[in-house]
Amino acid sequence: MTATIDPNAGVMTLVNVFTVDVDRQQQLVELLDEATEKAMKRQPGFISANIHKSVDGTRVINYAQSRSKTDFEAMQKNPQAAEHMKAAAGLAKFDPIVCEVASSHSL
Amino acid sequence: MTATIDPNAGVMTLVNVFTVDVDRQQQLVELLDEATEKAMKRQPGFISANIHKSVDGTRVINYAQSRSKTDFEAMQKNPQAAEHMKAAAGLAKFDPIVCEVASSHSL
Repeated sequence: MTATIDPNAGVMTLVNVFTVDVDRQQQLVELLDEATEKAMKRQPGFISANIHKSVDGTRVINYAQSRSKTDFEAMQKNPQAAEHMKAAAGLAKFDPIVCEVASSHSL
Repeated sequence: MTATIDPNAGVMTLVNVFTVDVDRQQQLVELLDEATEKAMKRQPGFISANIHKSVDGTRVINYAQSRSKTDFEAMQKNPQAAEHMKAAAGLAKFDPIVCEVASSHSL
């Protein structure tokens, strides 16, 4: 299923911006892909994770959706998920921002 | 139309993270809503803009989609758009990151 962005869906969004060395960007994308498949996806409330690469090579952004803030918090405390995030922390600094969709505009 | 996140859609994504005073978060959301409707939406290549509010009140994130990197660059140079972004700069620091979707995972 393709992820959608909808202010009326009532989902929580986690935007996690990773700052990374250019020569490690692809490695970080693969690590987050694996973390999502092996750990995050199995946690309660998981809806989607969408991994983005900045064109300049210095960032990776995970746009992740979950049913609730509580589910995000539980996910971060889950031992399997925490192990993957520890590996990510070895490659990059990150800044996770828990959000709600305020509005959407499209053609 | 609801925005979708799809690695195969071939769209460019601009993730713009604004850092703002808690008591100005809502004002910034409204400014970005207006900028999108009055300027960005009329530019070539515009696909969507999705405004997010962080739960802690200190950030606003615009997840915007465009047909190409060239369209994003032209949008930023457009005088009307630039005027709105100048108003946003008066309220918040921002960090625009041009990305491609590398992968999507959902249930």
